[in-house]
Amino acid sequence: MKNFAISLIIALAVLSSCAHRVNISDPGQIVNMSQEAQDSLRTFKYYRFPLISPNDKQKIMARERWNAYEKWMLEDMHNRHEFTTCDTSIAQLKVVLIKPKTIQPGKENLIGFHLHGGGFLMGTPYERVAMLMVNEYGYPIYSLDYSLAPEVKYPVAILESLEVYKELLRQFPDKKIVTTSISAGGQILQSMLLRAQAQNLKMPDANVLYTPALDLNLTGNDSYSFNDGRDVIAMKNSASKMFKNLYLPEGTDLNDPLVSPVFADYKGDFPPTILSTGTRDLFLSISVRTFWNLKEGGITTELLVGEGGWHAYQYYPEIPEAIAARKAAYEFLDRHLGN
Amino acid sequence: MKNFAISLIIALAVLSSCAHRVNISDPGQIVNMSQEAQDSLRTFKYYRFPLISPNDKQKIMARERWNAYEKWMLEDMHNRHEFTTCDTSIAQLKVVLIKPKTIQPGKENLIGFHLHGGGFLMGTPYERVAMLMVNEYGYPIYSLDYSLAPEVKYPVAILESLEVYKELLRQFPDKKIVTTSISAGGQILQSMLLRAQAQNLKMPDANVLYTPALDLNLTGNDSYSFNDGRDVIAMKNSASKMFKNLYLPEGTDLNDPLVSPVFADYKGDFPPTILSTGTRDLFLSISVRTFWNLKEGGITTELLVGEGGWHAYQYYPEIPEAIAARKAAYEFLDRHLGN
Repeated sequence: MKNFAISLIIALAVLSSCAHRVNISDPGQIVNMSQEAQDSLRTFKYYRFPLISPNDKQKIMARERWNAYEKWMLEDMHNRHEFTTCDTSIAQLKVVLIKPKTIQPGKENLIGFHLHGGGFLMGTPYERVAMLMVNEYGYPIYSLDYSLAPEVKYPVAILESLEVYKELLRQFPDKKIVTTSISAGGQILQSMLLRAQAQNLKMPDANVLYTPALDLNLTGNDSYSFNDGRDVIAMKNSASKMFKNLYLPEGTDLNDPLVSPVFADYKGDFPPTILSTGTRDLFLSISVRTFWNLKEGGITTELLVGEGGWHAYQYYPEIPEAIAARKAAYEFLDRHLGN
Repeated sequence: MKNFAISLIIALAVLSSCAHRVNISDPGQIVNMSQEAQDSLRTFKYYRFPLISPNDKQKIMARERWNAYEKWMLEDMHNRHEFTTCDTSIAQLKVVLIKPKTIQPGKENLIGFHLHGGGFLMGTPYERVAMLMVNEYGYPIYSLDYSLAPEVKYPVAILESLEVYKELLRQFPDKKIVTTSISAGGQILQSMLLRAQAQNLKMPDANVLYTPALDLNLTGNDSYSFNDGRDVIAMKNSASKMFKNLYLPEGTDLNDPLVSPVFADYKGDFPPTILSTGTRDLFLSISVRTFWNLKEGGITTELLVGEGGWHAYQYYPEIPEAIAARKAAYEFLDRHLGN
C-alpha cells in the first residue's frame, strides 16, 4: 500500500513535470524548423531572458537582469547595423528616437511609434524588435519609455502612449505613421488606438502586433492548453501573476475591451493590422481571435504563424523564421503605405 | 512490488489514454468558441464521420458508412439551398457538375474545379464543402470522382485530375478557374498544379486549400505533437496507415514535392493560394509551412486559422467559425479574380 502510494506520487510528479517542461523531446516536431531555431530550442542559446518571478520583492532584480540583457542586445545591434538612438521627450515623457543610417527611398515621409514588451513590468525603449525594424525597413521609430508596473497600474502606460501619439500627430501632420509593438506592448498599443479612435483622432496608416498580449484574462484561449509548458518564454502562471497581480488594479474587468482588446468591436477607420505569432506561442489563440474580430469589423488584417515559433521569436536577428516574419510584416507595410 | 507494478501500469494506461483522447475537459479552452462549435465538440453532434479502421478488409465498410453520411449531407444541403448536380464525364472520367440556382452577378465567367477529401480511400464528388461554395459563392463547380486507394495508388488520382484540368482549359479557354479542395484532395490538387505548371499549362486564377494534407510524411510537424488526440477528425496513427500503407506504393519517397507538396519550390505563375486550418487541426503545421514556402517563392498567399477549429471544420454549414472561414476564402477570391 505504501509502495502503491509512492508510485502514484512518482507518476503524478512525472505527469506534472512533463506538463510544465518545454517539450523538445520529439525530434519530429522540430525537424522542419531552421537549424538556428532548433539550436535555440535545444540549447536555449538565445534564452538569456530573466526567468521572471513576478512578485514585488523580485521585480527590481528581474528588471536589472532584463536591462543587462537589453544592454547586450543594444551592443549586438550596433555590431550588426549603423544606426543612432537619441534620448528625447515628447509630451513630457521619455522617448527614444531610433534612426537608421539612411532613410530608405520612399520612406522619407514615414515615422514609427513603438511600444516595447516585458510583461508590463520590465523592458526599455531600446528594444531589439524596434531596432531591427528601423534597420531592416529603413525608417525612424519613436519608442516610448512608458511607466512600468507595479509602481503604476493600468491604464497609466496607455494614457502616456496616447499623449505621445497625439503629440506625434501634432508635430507631423503630413507624415504617415506606423504603430508597432511586441507582447505586452500590444495591449498598450491596441487599447491606446481604441481610445484614440473613440476621440476621433487620425488613425495610423498601419499597425504591427508581434505576439500581442491582447487578452489579460488567462483563460479561454485554446493555445493556453497546448502551449503552456511548450513556450520557452511565456508561461501561463507567471503571465497571470504579472497581469492580474501587478499590472491591473484589483477588481478590473478582464473582459473590458480596453483591458483585453481581443474583445473589442473593431470598426470604421481602425488601421490595417498584421498579427504575428507562432505554433508554440502561449498567446497564439489571442492573435487568431483578434484576426477574426478585425475581419468581422471589416478591418484589413493578416495573420502570420511561424512553424515552431515561440513567444517573441520574431525578436531574433538571425533565425530564418524570425527574418521571414519581419519580412512579411514589411511587405504588409509596403502594401498599405503605398510605397 | 506487485502493487508498485500494478500502479505503474495504471499510471501508464492513464497517460496513454489521455494522450489519445480528445481533450475537451478544460472549459477555458473553448469558452471563446461559438456555442455551435462548443456543442459540436462536447456532444460530437456533427461527428457522424465513420471512424476509420483503414485496412483492406474494412475499407468497404468505411466507404459505405461514409457514403451514407454523404447521402445525408446531400439531402441536408438540398433542404438548405436550391441547386442542381449533374453526373457527367470529362476526359472519360466521372465528374459531377454542381450548379447554383443562379450564377451570382460577375461570376458568369467563372468555373470551379474541386477535389474532395476522404483520406484518399473514401469520399465522393458530392462533397459538402463543394456544395457550400457553389451555393454561397454562386458559381458552378466541376467535382471529380477520382479513383480511390487502395485499389489504385499514387499518382493515379493526380494524373486523372490533370487530365480533367487540361480538358477544362480546352473547353473553357476564356473562363477564370478556381481550384478548391479539402484534406486529401489538397494533396491531389497541389501535386496536380505543380505538374501542370511544369508542363507550362495555364494556371488557375486562384487556389483554395481547406486543411490540406500536403505532407504525407507523418513526422516533422509541430502540430502532430500538440493536436494528436485533440482533433476529433484526424488522428496521426490512422492518417499514417491511410497514407503510407494504402495510398502510396511501397518505397515512395515521402519528401518528394509531388508526394508531399509542402516541400515544393513554389515559383513563377503558381496561383494565389489561400490556406485554411484551425488550432486543433492535426495538419495545422502543414498549412503554416506551406504558407511560408509559397511566400518564399513570391506567391500570393493567405493563412486562415480558426480558434479551436479541427480538421475539416470548414465543412459545417452552421458553425460560425466555419462560415467565417468560407467567407474569408470568398473575399480572397474576390480580390484575386477581380470581381
